[in-house]
Amino acid sequence: MNVPADTVRARLARVRGNARAAGVDALVVTHLPNLQYLTGFTGSSGVALVLPRACLLIVDFRYVTAATELISGLDGLVTLETFERSYDEALVDVLRRERAARIGIEAAYLPVSRFNAISSGLASRSALPIDVSTTSPALVPTERLVEQTRVIKDDIEIAALREGGRRLGAIARRVADFVREGRTERAVAADIEAAMRGAGFSRPAFETIVASGPNSALPHARPTAREIRPGDPTVLDFGGVYDGYCVDLTRTVQLGATSTALARLYGAVAEAQQAAIAAVRPGVAASAIDAAARNVLQNHGLAEAFGHGTGHGLGLEVHEEPRIARLWPRLADPLVEPGMVFTIEPGAYVPGVGGVRIEDDILVTETGCEILTRQEDGG
Amino acid sequence: MNVPADTVRARLARVRGNARAAGVDALVVTHLPNLQYLTGFTGSSGVALVLPRACLLIVDFRYVTAATELISGLDGLVTLETFERSYDEALVDVLRRERAARIGIEAAYLPVSRFNAISSGLASRSALPIDVSTTSPALVPTERLVEQTRVIKDDIEIAALREGGRRLGAIARRVADFVREGRTERAVAADIEAAMRGAGFSRPAFETIVASGPNSALPHARPTAREIRPGDPTVLDFGGVYDGYCVDLTRTVQLGATSTALARLYGAVAEAQQAAIAAVRPGVAASAIDAAARNVLQNHGLAEAFGHGTGHGLGLEVHEEPRIARLWPRLADPLVEPGMVFTIEPGAYVPGVGGVRIEDDILVTETGCEILTRQEDGG
Repeated sequence: MNVPADTVRARLARVRGNARAAGVDALVVTHLPNLQYLTGFTGSSGVALVLPRACLLIVDFRYVTAATELISGLDGLVTLETFERSYDEALVDVLRRERAARIGIEAAYLPVSRFNAISSGLASRSALPIDVSTTSPALVPTERLVEQTRVIKDDIEIAALREGGRRLGAIARRVADFVREGRTERAVAADIEAAMRGAGFSRPAFETIVASGPNSALPHARPTAREIRPGDPTVLDFGGVYDGYCVDLTRTVQLGATSTALARLYGAVAEAQQAAIAAVRPGVAASAIDAAARNVLQNHGLAEAFGHGTGHGLGLEVHEEPRIARLWPRLADPLVEPGMVFTIEPGAYVPGVGGVRIEDDILVTETGCEILTRQEDGG
Repeated sequence: MNVPADTVRARLARVRGNARAAGVDALVVTHLPNLQYLTGFTGSSGVALVLPRACLLIVDFRYVTAATELISGLDGLVTLETFERSYDEALVDVLRRERAARIGIEAAYLPVSRFNAISSGLASRSALPIDVSTTSPALVPTERLVEQTRVIKDDIEIAALREGGRRLGAIARRVADFVREGRTERAVAADIEAAMRGAGFSRPAFETIVASGPNSALPHARPTAREIRPGDPTVLDFGGVYDGYCVDLTRTVQLGATSTALARLYGAVAEAQQAAIAAVRPGVAASAIDAAARNVLQNHGLAEAFGHGTGHGLGLEVHEEPRIARLWPRLADPLVEPGMVFTIEPGAYVPGVGGVRIEDDILVTETGCEILTRQEDGG
């Protein structure tokens, strides 16, 4: 989507506040979803430089026409730069011209080699050993300066996620029809992807998972040429990008008669998902939502069968903050806030029996949550 | 694809030689296509540690079952490690256990934050300022230790690329039928992607480009709801992943009568592509292949209209080495060797007239090249 100027203004203001708090007077944005969030730019390469009173978008030849059109709608909030040589040389030129002193980089994404190239370009001396303390101007590793703003969705993001969730939920009601005896996992995946295109998704948000029979016990199986047989559980995990935003959903369907062991697994996972959804409200720790699901599975003797986290944030990326998972030392355990959007997707995988996963997307509200992928008018 | 043990053995031997030449006794492989190349592992996260006499594959819970099965076919060349906490902590534990002294990291991919985490884990002291010179054991930025081997395709890779090229070329012969008056760019993109699925591609290699009329003048346009009209040129740029390998192709088709200006553009680009293909043979510099295309366009007064490079390597990634582009200071200008596979895709984009791009994939042979996407039995 094109982001309205007022939204860009608000997002830039928040990120400038984050940069100030981190003690940097310039922020080099190289992570493309962050670039898209701040400017609306959707190319496959580009750099933004957020300064206290300007935001520069650096793009290469291929994107000059598209970027010029994009920024023409942004009230002068973003200005365009292009170049002949390389992004890093262009960035160094701009940083020198703007006389930035403490320059934040996105440490979670900027590779060591680019850090070195920018650092040595600024210092005009050799880059190794990396030693930020003697580099002037200073290149400062920062974390989450854009992400901490992105984690709370604004109104236009919520509208896109709600509509995407509604459309994906409508497809979920039809997927059991795709799973028929003798069809291959790949054919079912193709049906799901065609249904997503038909429903207005621009592309799959990730490689569709269709995992039948023994494959269902692999949490991240890829579709194979295996033909689905009566008695098989089939895990269908799929998502699409709607208006730039990712939604993600899993259903486990059963062809033919269900074994007792599988029925118990399904019941336990469904109960775990309900418990986690019921635990969502502002102020609750992410790990407490995970624990709600995990305790249910533990009570069913399935603690070992649930080896992944309970959920992940959704937005411009299909995996983003917040992470809904067990508490680990040194990993963040955010408190849930209104405007967060994430998946709730417990699963249980038992080799020899099969696997079950059930996933929906929720929006945290003032009082609890709204399930985006189970709207009654979905479709 | 599952990589045969003999192929894994040969690839590991070459990469160990590269590591030795770079002066490191361990190489931490975090770039996923490199991981796939060395072990066949195709998960969405994982780390390999290449040591002189062992290769360890570190995966998280989700991939233990799949990775166990994978390495069971590899004659003990790769051994599995899993963990409870985080990849970087697991990696530090393994590096300490193996007593690696000079540890290469992939500087083009490893983010600054992970470099810091591993570095501080090894040194058990604070990570900032980054100072590799005083860290013992030493974490050493390296470049291209796996890529310099990947750039020359081995037999199983050539087989996959040839078959993928053949199938993509067969689709290219049909795409003009998809472009009909009143159809939207998005509908045509959906047809192309369905044709790729039907032809055995596991997924698109990138977001399909269908750029009609004025949009054709944008080298990287995305499909829109624009309806194609008589007189429009339409650039169709699409690719698929076949047996793990990416192929990529562009055709520009014309609906209805062609303007004289467009016909001239098309003729010039076709001539440029032929000139570049004719220039490919072992020992030629990549920049000379680019120059062959660029000179033709310059002779037609279209130097300014061709702002991108002539081609890029293909393999596990859709953009990899070698880069076929103009000579720039400090950027590599490789000599072409047999076994390289890359695109040849000159284009010319003239606002007000339209754009034309023609792209095929070639394999460098001992005497010249083989065009993978124009095989006579394609389809």
